[in-house]
Amino acid sequence: MTDPVTMALSADDLIKAALKEDISTEDISTNAVMRGYKKGTVQLICKQEGVICGLEVFARVFKILDGNTQIEFYVKDGDKVSKTQHIANVTGDIRVLLQGERTALNFLQRMSGIATYTSEVVSLLAGSKTKLLDTRKTTPNMRVFEKYAVRCGGGHNHRFNLSDGVLLKDNHIGAAGGITEAIKAAKEYSSFVRKIEVEVETLDGVREAVEAGADIIMLDNMSVEDMKKAVKMIGGRALTECSGNVTRESVKNVISAGVDYVSSGALTHSAPILDLSLKNLHPVEE
Amino acid sequence: MTDPVTMALSADDLIKAALKEDISTEDISTNAVMRGYKKGTVQLICKQEGVICGLEVFARVFKILDGNTQIEFYVKDGDKVSKTQHIANVTGDIRVLLQGERTALNFLQRMSGIATYTSEVVSLLAGSKTKLLDTRKTTPNMRVFEKYAVRCGGGHNHRFNLSDGVLLKDNHIGAAGGITEAIKAAKEYSSFVRKIEVEVETLDGVREAVEAGADIIMLDNMSVEDMKKAVKMIGGRALTECSGNVTRESVKNVISAGVDYVSSGALTHSAPILDLSLKNLHPVEE
Amino acid sequence: MTDPVTMALSADDLIKAALKEDISTEDISTNAVMRGYKKGTVQLICKQEGVICGLEVFARVFKILDGNTQIEFYVKDGDKVSKTQHIANVTGDIRVLLQGERTALNFLQRMSGIATYTSEVVSLLAGSKTKLLDTRKTTPNMRVFEKYAVRCGGGHNHRFNLSDGVLLKDNHIGAAGGITEAIKAAKEYSSFVRKIEVEVETLDGVREAVEAGADIIMLDNMSVEDMKKAVKMIGGRALTECSGNVTRESVKNVISAGVDYVSSGALTHSAPILDLSLKNLHPVEE
Amino acid sequence: MTDPVTMALSADDLIKAALKEDISTEDISTNAVMRGYKKGTVQLICKQEGVICGLEVFARVFKILDGNTQIEFYVKDGDKVSKTQHIANVTGDIRVLLQGERTALNFLQRMSGIATYTSEVVSLLAGSKTKLLDTRKTTPNMRVFEKYAVRCGGGHNHRFNLSDGVLLKDNHIGAAGGITEAIKAAKEYSSFVRKIEVEVETLDGVREAVEAGADIIMLDNMSVEDMKKAVKMIGGRALTECSGNVTRESVKNVISAGVDYVSSGALTHSAPILDLSLKNLHPVEE
Amino acid sequence: MTDPVTMALSADDLIKAALKEDISTEDISTNAVMRGYKKGTVQLICKQEGVICGLEVFARVFKILDGNTQIEFYVKDGDKVSKTQHIANVTGDIRVLLQGERTALNFLQRMSGIATYTSEVVSLLAGSKTKLLDTRKTTPNMRVFEKYAVRCGGGHNHRFNLSDGVLLKDNHIGAAGGITEAIKAAKEYSSFVRKIEVEVETLDGVREAVEAGADIIMLDNMSVEDMKKAVKMIGGRALTECSGNVTRESVKNVISAGVDYVSSGALTHSAPILDLSLKNLHPVEE
Amino acid sequence: MTDPVTMALSADDLIKAALKEDISTEDISTNAVMRGYKKGTVQLICKQEGVICGLEVFARVFKILDGNTQIEFYVKDGDKVSKTQHIANVTGDIRVLLQGERTALNFLQRMSGIATYTSEVVSLLAGSKTKLLDTRKTTPNMRVFEKYAVRCGGGHNHRFNLSDGVLLKDNHIGAAGGITEAIKAAKEYSSFVRKIEVEVETLDGVREAVEAGADIIMLDNMSVEDMKKAVKMIGGRALTECSGNVTRESVKNVISAGVDYVSSGALTHSAPILDLSLKNLHPVEE
Repeated sequence: MTDPVTMALSADDLIKAALKEDISTEDISTNAVMRGYKKGTVQLICKQEGVICGLEVFARVFKILDGNTQIEFYVKDGDKVSKTQHIANVTGDIRVLLQGERTALNFLQRMSGIATYTSEVVSLLAGSKTKLLDTRKTTPNMRVFEKYAVRCGGGHNHRFNLSDGVLLKDNHIGAAGGITEAIKAAKEYSSFVRKIEVEVETLDGVREAVEAGADIIMLDNMSVEDMKKAVKMIGGRALTECSGNVTRESVKNVISAGVDYVSSGALTHSAPILDLSLKNLHPVEE
Repeated sequence: MTDPVTMALSADDLIKAALKEDISTEDISTNAVMRGYKKGTVQLICKQEGVICGLEVFARVFKILDGNTQIEFYVKDGDKVSKTQHIANVTGDIRVLLQGERTALNFLQRMSGIATYTSEVVSLLAGSKTKLLDTRKTTPNMRVFEKYAVRCGGGHNHRFNLSDGVLLKDNHIGAAGGITEAIKAAKEYSSFVRKIEVEVETLDGVREAVEAGADIIMLDNMSVEDMKKAVKMIGGRALTECSGNVTRESVKNVISAGVDYVSSGALTHSAPILDLSLKNLHPVEE
Repeated sequence: MTDPVTMALSADDLIKAALKEDISTEDISTNAVMRGYKKGTVQLICKQEGVICGLEVFARVFKILDGNTQIEFYVKDGDKVSKTQHIANVTGDIRVLLQGERTALNFLQRMSGIATYTSEVVSLLAGSKTKLLDTRKTTPNMRVFEKYAVRCGGGHNHRFNLSDGVLLKDNHIGAAGGITEAIKAAKEYSSFVRKIEVEVETLDGVREAVEAGADIIMLDNMSVEDMKKAVKMIGGRALTECSGNVTRESVKNVISAGVDYVSSGALTHSAPILDLSLKNLHPVEE
Repeated sequence: MTDPVTMALSADDLIKAALKEDISTEDISTNAVMRGYKKGTVQLICKQEGVICGLEVFARVFKILDGNTQIEFYVKDGDKVSKTQHIANVTGDIRVLLQGERTALNFLQRMSGIATYTSEVVSLLAGSKTKLLDTRKTTPNMRVFEKYAVRCGGGHNHRFNLSDGVLLKDNHIGAAGGITEAIKAAKEYSSFVRKIEVEVETLDGVREAVEAGADIIMLDNMSVEDMKKAVKMIGGRALTECSGNVTRESVKNVISAGVDYVSSGALTHSAPILDLSLKNLHPVEE
Repeated sequence: MTDPVTMALSADDLIKAALKEDISTEDISTNAVMRGYKKGTVQLICKQEGVICGLEVFARVFKILDGNTQIEFYVKDGDKVSKTQHIANVTGDIRVLLQGERTALNFLQRMSGIATYTSEVVSLLAGSKTKLLDTRKTTPNMRVFEKYAVRCGGGHNHRFNLSDGVLLKDNHIGAAGGITEAIKAAKEYSSFVRKIEVEVETLDGVREAVEAGADIIMLDNMSVEDMKKAVKMIGGRALTECSGNVTRESVKNVISAGVDYVSSGALTHSAPILDLSLKNLHPVEE
Repeated sequence: MTDPVTMALSADDLIKAALKEDISTEDISTNAVMRGYKKGTVQLICKQEGVICGLEVFARVFKILDGNTQIEFYVKDGDKVSKTQHIANVTGDIRVLLQGERTALNFLQRMSGIATYTSEVVSLLAGSKTKLLDTRKTTPNMRVFEKYAVRCGGGHNHRFNLSDGVLLKDNHIGAAGGITEAIKAAKEYSSFVRKIEVEVETLDGVREAVEAGADIIMLDNMSVEDMKKAVKMIGGRALTECSGNVTRESVKNVISAGVDYVSSGALTHSAPILDLSLKNLHPVEE
């Protein structure tokens, strides 16, 4: 999301689609009152404390509309920002500034909201060995942006999708005829570059998974006591992940379990936005 | 979102893109353990009280993967649902049930979350003449789904985008040289089927807007007292809309202003999801 | 069609598709005789009196093929042009001039043909209060260009499509159970930013529509006498539109009816092109 | 345009794009008054004498919206049709009939208009050896439909685009250094399956072209007398095509020249539509 | 490639693009001689010994053209086939059989060619512990088909692309400042579900990689003697992969090195096709 | 493939799709170790003797990723290249050099492989009148690149696809009721700019085809003796093409037949790649 290739190949089509969603033919209001080019500048102001994320995406919205637009940033992705902080200047054709405003902010506010929420949960885990993970519970067609926002907030990414990671859940295990059989099938079928993760709900499941050679064991909705036993039983032979309705409110309970990772869908499906706005648009001399 | 044409023309491409986002080549885990067709069924269960929305979109995810999948609903969009309620059954190729699960839930949970949040705000306005509106502060590439969810929650839609409605904000007014000039320009430029809405921040602005023939006047960040005066001054010659950081927490303050509409970006940018899940997947006889 | 954002978001994809329609692999003839870059210039000449429209689209065809192409215009959209008038110069890679010629002219000639035809009909309405409207009877995938051409010819746009305007026709009224019921349903269902237009064929229908609060009343295939009565009956409580096979030949009959608008499908479905051509291609020094 | 493969590969994407152009989110009017499925039928009626063309495209519009729509035709492409003639019935979900109506007619009317105009010009050539050709002066993104319509009207197709035929015009000849050199370059460069056509304006050019082995010689804006001489000079060694502002009004002058083909841009760029409409929509029993 | 979801999401768009590449407007030859529907059947015959692969893709070509086409297979992907073997029957509209033939065979022959070549190399490794891997040296826009073909031939897949696997080559190591630093950076940056692979060229590199915690060590262009030493040094702490111009001719030399995997670009970039053809097309009764 | 228009309209979409195939989200390895811009340069080195082809496509891969990348070539398409020859330099953002490397080489190696193979076959035909043709047996979605590569190797192109050339095979002839009838149908149906080619297997067929006015006669799987007789019988009244499993190994046998053209599917379906690589990447000063 910060290198130009990722932007060109993974983000641009989605950004352009979002612009077309907001401007299906033309911006009637702007075109009615501004019949030609006039240069202007506008400030990006933060209205709430949080972690900023999505600055290159924000810039790209304006660049796609008009490659001559200039964007100057005073912070970088992952930085803490505060209320009233002046974050960036956007300078160019005033029509472009007006027509890109909403789409640019819709991306930036949502990505910053996720980074901010993630950052809060990460800070609750401070001092423990447990790292915070996202999930696939992302907004449709926003995953590439939302998973990047989790990283900016200090979290870590789980697999990107069903095609680039193996996670055997109860239904897979049922279909295969057991944990051992499922792990065996996955090792045979998937590329050798993949780790095999298995979801288990009992200590017996943990034992079977570790013996069958799982690389990662997801402890699903287990009690903290059982998770402690599981971690001990595994003894470093596999990574451990705790899963199940983890939020800002509940995450601290998990720390004592001693797992390597805790995953939280709330990071991407329920974080409120970070409030930002474009202010003080005014014409400038060429 | 409930008629087949809207689904075919406006939703299908976005749903298919979301599926490709989650399955860029294949679902490794499922294909590893299920090498062929087996028929199964799974239940959609509500895990939280709220308003359901997006059932046809949920169904469409599975239908796009396999046209033979059967979905039976026990509720309809806009219905209140409660914790543990059995909402639907999905029956078909077990691989399809597993591969569509996350994408289908990601749509349904988000749309239901918005409908639920909207419904709560609407109930706070009960008894008043003021109706609740959404904004353009939607998630990129999700607007058609999110605006429908607002309607399911009892809210009303503002314009869809910059191309199908006129809203003259301070920058447009500045560019035109004043409220009167901006309204005149908009009436000349835009189709006669469009109403002209103007954003004003003062009572002087209100007076000028109504005299210039605005159809709708947005009272932006004005005090309740000023809004009362504005409504009286307008005297039915234009519709009135109150705007500015309206949330579940603050909306009740607005009622006494007596405006026709209050708009809230929070409906679409900060509603948490409604928790739903697919449970009890099991094979069935053909 | 003249601001860069509309061009980037609404026109470019259609222009590129048109270029691919004309060059599915390569231009064999040009590539056979011109194996490399040579700079040249060519003149755009008008061969018929009319109204020019589509200059930026014309330019965009060459710019998409080669961003270095220079286009210099001596007129602007909406200007009257005359036979043999030199309208523009296009300068750049001769291969690009030859390969873009047909597509650029196909756009420009059709848009100018519509602007010219519209301009003639508008002049026939001169002195009356009645304004000229287009319809949705446009060429598939050309609407954004053709509706703009109507504006350049002095006409006005009706709604863009089925999604951005309400027009209740006989079948909608039949389905709703009457004019009053249809208007009520539309007010409930559609965004409050939309005006409600109803098509009626009798004076009784006019009365019912105006009482039910229609914003615009379309008088469909009514006699001039009945239209006069309708306009009087409405008394300014709704806008009036006359519809039904209005062409260059028949439009003058409508004036005395005193309606606000008259719509004509012929503007976009039957206007002949304006003849234009590229002449005097010759090499130039770098 | 009548076989299913051509429809699937060449027409469907353009038809779907046209539907999206007319329904960017949903049909507000129809959805307001018809909240669910009701079966109905509507008649396609001809309102003007002409040649019908585009029936499968017309049908495909409704089929894309809803595969269950039934279309029954009483004529076939290329048939003469008369005023008030009942041409087809369309039966299905009333919402689909209403939502597809305009797009279906926009295709059918334009294609039938071209077929009708072509048929008139063809009849003026009756008794002569000269056949009528179309050109590349088609509406952008409509060529596959318009070239088919020319065939339905009794005309013949010239090359489809710049990639599937060689036509050396004055600029190509200039670049190559002469007619002989241009023909030589084209024979070397293009596939041996292509005929080589050259545009000439003088009898000297004709002589050079035929000696250099041109397969087709286009006589551009030559007098009838000169064309007669050219045909005699060529003596069957190449096919001959007459080109230059040929319309319904001027075509008869060409006959005596004795050329093999006469091409006319007007067929596709200036034919008015054939008036057709959907009438008598009414519900039917299942 | 055999489950319907993979076909719908990953293959269909590429298959449809290939069909459009071969039929940009219509199949002139077939449409000239077959003006309507006639049912026929044709046999798929193998003309060379090999391993068949791509049957579902072959079938999908015809299904996309016409959903009513019936395909009956007598073998399955991965089966050995012999000269003159009758592999499948395709039955349906004769025009569809002719129009899909070349595209269907182009996919099937290439995929079978890769499976056949892979199978030969795999058989040369029989008895050893070393498994055969593919690379990213695939034909552009064919990777999903070619990597599946390698599996059908008994080979294994390396990572799919740059986004779903980590492989640190000399340039990455140089940029990071050393093997240890590169591995550390990759562990921090990439998802914890990814294994870390490092390419080394010397025994010192091997030692550093294994100590820094690499999961997979690629021995690039090392001698068999050095590879033996490397395998011993690693002692099971990482998987080993041998890389560098491995072909059918050279693979046997590698066996004695005792590596876990050997990768070969030739599998996908230089395998000749397997010759197959459609024969004995004839009409059948409905 | 060398003029900018062909690149923009025919190649860019396929190149971008290939890049997305290889980088579905981001290049994890490169982004892990290179967090920002650093300028570098890398050499394109030939590792095998052959004919180079696809240089502009190779360059375009990097230009699409980053328009600032500089590519300097020391050879041009169609040139012979030798082992260790330094062919080009690519200079720009090191991340771009790494991320485009594989895709750029995949195109270049395959195109050069085809050009090399073609060149070898062409050299075997030296001294004869017979020219070498390609076929439609190309890799799906690679035809525009592969047919160009055949030309670079000294071969000639047959028709591009089913839409731009007529070739009547046994099944078309059977459907039409005979060779004469098939040729007549094709002349009526297809554009007059097309030559008519017929495939025949016997001398009787040759006689009928030439009398019916075929422009090209394909002698399919006939003996050299029969081909000699056919060529004599045709006596220049049609072009002749020999077809049927022609490869590098078998082509010399055909020469004595005296046909105008010989076509070989092997050129595009079984040519191995030409080995090329990017070497010596190192940072450079700005």
